[in-house]
Amino acid sequence: MDVFDHPYLSGLFGDPELAVLWSAKAQVAHMLAFESAFSRAMGAAGRFDRHLAAQAATHIDQLALDPTTLRGGCARDGLPVPALVAALKADAGDTAAAIHAGATSQDVMDTALALTLQGTTTLLDARLRALNDGLSALSDRDGGADLMGRTRMQAALPITVADRVRIWRMPLIDHRARLDLARAQTERLSLAGPVGTGDFADVAADMAQALGLTTAQPWHTDRSGIVAYGNLLALMTGSIGKIGQDIALMAQQGIGAVSISGGGGSSAMAHKQNPVLAELLVTLARYNAGQAGVLQQAMVHEQERSGAAWALEWMVLPQMAQTTGRALTAAIALVGDIKRMGDAQT
Amino acid sequence: MDVFDHPYLSGLFGDPELAVLWSAKAQVAHMLAFESAFSRAMGAAGRFDRHLAAQAATHIDQLALDPTTLRGGCARDGLPVPALVAALKADAGDTAAAIHAGATSQDVMDTALALTLQGTTTLLDARLRALNDGLSALSDRDGGADLMGRTRMQAALPITVADRVRIWRMPLIDHRARLDLARAQTERLSLAGPVGTGDFADVAADMAQALGLTTAQPWHTDRSGIVAYGNLLALMTGSIGKIGQDIALMAQQGIGAVSISGGGGSSAMAHKQNPVLAELLVTLARYNAGQAGVLQQAMVHEQERSGAAWALEWMVLPQMAQTTGRALTAAIALVGDIKRMGDAQT
Amino acid sequence: MDVFDHPYLSGLFGDPELAVLWSAKAQVAHMLAFESAFSRAMGAAGRFDRHLAAQAATHIDQLALDPTTLRGGCARDGLPVPALVAALKADAGDTAAAIHAGATSQDVMDTALALTLQGTTTLLDARLRALNDGLSALSDRDGGADLMGRTRMQAALPITVADRVRIWRMPLIDHRARLDLARAQTERLSLAGPVGTGDFADVAADMAQALGLTTAQPWHTDRSGIVAYGNLLALMTGSIGKIGQDIALMAQQGIGAVSISGGGGSSAMAHKQNPVLAELLVTLARYNAGQAGVLQQAMVHEQERSGAAWALEWMVLPQMAQTTGRALTAAIALVGDIKRMGDAQT
Amino acid sequence: MDVFDHPYLSGLFGDPELAVLWSAKAQVAHMLAFESAFSRAMGAAGRFDRHLAAQAATHIDQLALDPTTLRGGCARDGLPVPALVAALKADAGDTAAAIHAGATSQDVMDTALALTLQGTTTLLDARLRALNDGLSALSDRDGGADLMGRTRMQAALPITVADRVRIWRMPLIDHRARLDLARAQTERLSLAGPVGTGDFADVAADMAQALGLTTAQPWHTDRSGIVAYGNLLALMTGSIGKIGQDIALMAQQGIGAVSISGGGGSSAMAHKQNPVLAELLVTLARYNAGQAGVLQQAMVHEQERSGAAWALEWMVLPQMAQTTGRALTAAIALVGDIKRMGDAQT
Repeated sequence: MDVFDHPYLSGLFGDPELAVLWSAKAQVAHMLAFESAFSRAMGAAGRFDRHLAAQAATHIDQLALDPTTLRGGCARDGLPVPALVAALKADAGDTAAAIHAGATSQDVMDTALALTLQGTTTLLDARLRALNDGLSALSDRDGGADLMGRTRMQAALPITVADRVRIWRMPLIDHRARLDLARAQTERLSLAGPVGTGDFADVAADMAQALGLTTAQPWHTDRSGIVAYGNLLALMTGSIGKIGQDIALMAQQGIGAVSISGGGGSSAMAHKQNPVLAELLVTLARYNAGQAGVLQQAMVHEQERSGAAWALEWMVLPQMAQTTGRALTAAIALVGDIKRMGDAQT
Repeated sequence: MDVFDHPYLSGLFGDPELAVLWSAKAQVAHMLAFESAFSRAMGAAGRFDRHLAAQAATHIDQLALDPTTLRGGCARDGLPVPALVAALKADAGDTAAAIHAGATSQDVMDTALALTLQGTTTLLDARLRALNDGLSALSDRDGGADLMGRTRMQAALPITVADRVRIWRMPLIDHRARLDLARAQTERLSLAGPVGTGDFADVAADMAQALGLTTAQPWHTDRSGIVAYGNLLALMTGSIGKIGQDIALMAQQGIGAVSISGGGGSSAMAHKQNPVLAELLVTLARYNAGQAGVLQQAMVHEQERSGAAWALEWMVLPQMAQTTGRALTAAIALVGDIKRMGDAQT
Repeated sequence: MDVFDHPYLSGLFGDPELAVLWSAKAQVAHMLAFESAFSRAMGAAGRFDRHLAAQAATHIDQLALDPTTLRGGCARDGLPVPALVAALKADAGDTAAAIHAGATSQDVMDTALALTLQGTTTLLDARLRALNDGLSALSDRDGGADLMGRTRMQAALPITVADRVRIWRMPLIDHRARLDLARAQTERLSLAGPVGTGDFADVAADMAQALGLTTAQPWHTDRSGIVAYGNLLALMTGSIGKIGQDIALMAQQGIGAVSISGGGGSSAMAHKQNPVLAELLVTLARYNAGQAGVLQQAMVHEQERSGAAWALEWMVLPQMAQTTGRALTAAIALVGDIKRMGDAQT
Repeated sequence: MDVFDHPYLSGLFGDPELAVLWSAKAQVAHMLAFESAFSRAMGAAGRFDRHLAAQAATHIDQLALDPTTLRGGCARDGLPVPALVAALKADAGDTAAAIHAGATSQDVMDTALALTLQGTTTLLDARLRALNDGLSALSDRDGGADLMGRTRMQAALPITVADRVRIWRMPLIDHRARLDLARAQTERLSLAGPVGTGDFADVAADMAQALGLTTAQPWHTDRSGIVAYGNLLALMTGSIGKIGQDIALMAQQGIGAVSISGGGGSSAMAHKQNPVLAELLVTLARYNAGQAGVLQQAMVHEQERSGAAWALEWMVLPQMAQTTGRALTAAIALVGDIKRMGDAQT
């Protein structure tokens, strides 16, 4: 039970849009999309019987598969695909011959992941823009206000609110460009077969187009695109965490350089207004920073497929994505809650 | 949606017993146990009206609180306790005066965590013993068999199965002793009040006894007991990961030093028997190793309470506990699945 | 005393070329290059007296500054620049007025770092090409040999040496492209003044050209370029670590899919030939993977300068760079030592 | 070139006492101590010729071995011991037969590490006591002063300086107890032979006594004692980092709850007094926190010896120890520099 889906902690940590995107239901839908497109493309290429292939694809498209039915197979096989394929074939009769043959579990799951990352990138990009817009509006409103510039936790020289907001925004713009580049190394079809040597030159372009992905050389054991994506997530939460840390510091009594509406209450001290979202941004930054270091360990992916290294990605990447998504919604909300930024006039 | 509660990945990663222990329902029950014991003890000490306090405790004991009702409050306040206290008082009438007054959110949540860790320790200890027993039986059966000792991935000198199993068991025994010591630094009442200065000398012993915990000096910002517990979890999964890595290496064709029943199937290669559980142990070890480094960041817990550092614990520790629990059940199952260990006779 | 400069461990871990680049002597030279270019450009812009500025620059260029003389100042100030500036001004007489005024410590050190990263990138890029060439030659020679494809530590289906080498090479090519992109976000002049608001529009282009860097908006607290560079280092060592892990697995007796000349000796077993470099690649990958997660913590860089977060970079990034450099030289050597790759004929 | 031995950064990060203890020279001395004690004990047990063994031990005791001479051997063998043993035997004539035979490299290096950790523990313990004394004196002097208790970065309720100092001290006292327990799992002779099966029952007690260590079951691949030690180091720097963070926050203008003598200067702002040591404590805490997560990865130590996992310890543990040592000296100095703690009277 992680904090993102937790009955009450999700109030603080949850990101409903990303939760849908990373849900088991969405993963199954993505895996079925792979299998359907695979049958269709193999049929079109004449590698499956065209008629059976069309039937198979339709069969797959119409299948309503409850994710929990894959649980037992996943326990046995270490991944859900054998059970999924068995379910596809169960009532398929002759069309079973035109299902999955030649592909492998990793093709299915890595392609499903590519689709999830595509949706994630789109969402995060839109939120980066929204956060950037919110900061721009803040700067438009309060940018001229004085703010004591502080270095090494000490008052240094006067700056303006605009100065500080400018450098908050700077990495966000860069992150959008980084996300754009990340598309090329993540939104790729995986189609390599059991040991990465399958020849699908006649099939890949069709499939990729059907799925909205690009084709690529088999990349099954080269996890650098995925891990680089995780790194980028941590960069984003890091930049946002800096904003949160700055706001929490500004909100201190005695500093008073920001006024926020809607702070959190205390069970013991009714007078308090806690900068809950600002602190949350720091938490999320520190979490993702560390997770990036864990995900990097998955790069040592031995031979033609590592069960151990691959499964480590499953434990880490979904949480990193949801952390990033929540950091963005929380930052957008927090910036919107700022009633005044700048040193109080004295 | 983490791997532990995931509709199908939980088949591989899930630990039903630990999932119950770390569920929101159990946390709420533990928080209510705190509040009930607090009202009772404050009444007994004459700090709450005795009659009201008894009524309040009964009221709390009988409350059925749906964890999801705390979601909105948690979003607002950054933690569930203000909403929980409000729920306790909602229908309490006069007895509301004998509820929570003088305590603080962190007292409630840290004490609830202490109870969860108590249950976790008991479970893990029993499983360590079971794994140790399983390894002992393995050594009894196959210990005399030859095994090529391997250092730096190279054949070195002959050893026996008993030799290798001995050093697998060695840390497990030490971990049980470490768990015993960990009880003293985790199974403690937290009762310090809003800024850690509350005087509850007349109340703490009663409460601790009621809850099955010990009393302690206020430790609200000293997270070393909790982080040390996380470290111990990572040590456990590390030791178990070594067993998994060894078994995965022994299971290679060409080495053939172990034969395992029930290996996982492949969607593409019907002839394969994958050492799924052995690989899983490595995954879990690498995950927890990294998480320990994230949890350690929570030690920098500023002033009288850090919302940022504290919430980082919530994101990491439950997953570490479940990882450890699953490593133990998987290791117990894997050892039980070993049909033969030792170099094949040639 | 880290492993890179250690009297004997440097035999295994050391990278003499990168050690020079990251030496204190080189850092001081880079800091002096900043100060000299700054005086000159400020003079050219008429912001320093032109004559004094030219004298100051010449004075700085001719200065031989022993890095150890900055030790006391660094202890006192937390960074070496105040002592460095004092040393520059010590014998400068009137020209002291044309030294450093308007710049700040972070400008000096971040620009010096940019120069170090520039040299590092050039070296790593050349080595990536050399490693890629070595692998290409290996594939040319042994590519046709049979190799059992292995997934989840189990024999799967036959592949060829060329198949495995192809996917070893794939990320290396991508990393070269990534390094190219990284130049834009690291080889930048830092010139922002004490709190990041200095206006150096008339100076920056001159300085940047003199130093071989580009100009950029003040980026003093946006550490994403530097942290992204560290992430890339970890990606590189990860990809190389996978090669090392594969070779160590192939070198096992019983597998025998690679034969390496010059393996390491044992103090106890004269018959052994240990795949020392292959194991080293795994060590370096796991080290850098974790360090990336530590460096990411430096993103939470509060206000206009964080002494705490900034100094964390100094503890981590130089080691990451040297780890990467050594991974490349070790991989190049290891690939060159491969006498035969492919399953032994039986 | 790490920050601990760096020509100028060592002014900030260096710890001369720990640097000596972790120097190559000390490691070589500890390895020679092992070899000398081994020859002597094997002679006493009649397993080496008594006369030759005595000569060998004397020969070893008198040897002046320049660590750099082991560099080439370390490059070749992946560790320094084969070259060290060769150097011991080079001029030894007949006595060579009474040197090292039956032991293995890991015995030598792990025992040398045990001796280094013994010295480290003694130093750290003394410093924990000194820091605790310094805090006690601070509390004696300023404990009665008012301090605004702050939770979630917000003013909460008034406390006293004594209240805050009490919880700073609490973990330090616990860490001393933890260090005491750590002795048992680190100050152990390693004597297991090439694959951990050597029988040295007649030798170990003698050797252990000579070296000031205890005997233990062979623990060569059970790294839990060493990794647990690293965890404890991170706990210590974490607790100290909390002190540093609190002081840096108190030192802010506008808060003004602490006055420190000897703050660091700025190259640009003569008026500033930076809380350099307070920030350093945070840096060191975050560094060690992350390193603990890296060291934990070394638990997956495959088979009878992992070159990869073992070498990871060499890259991480010495830095963790020096980080901890420096955190303690810096904290002691910082606490001594506090001229006044408590909210300014208004």
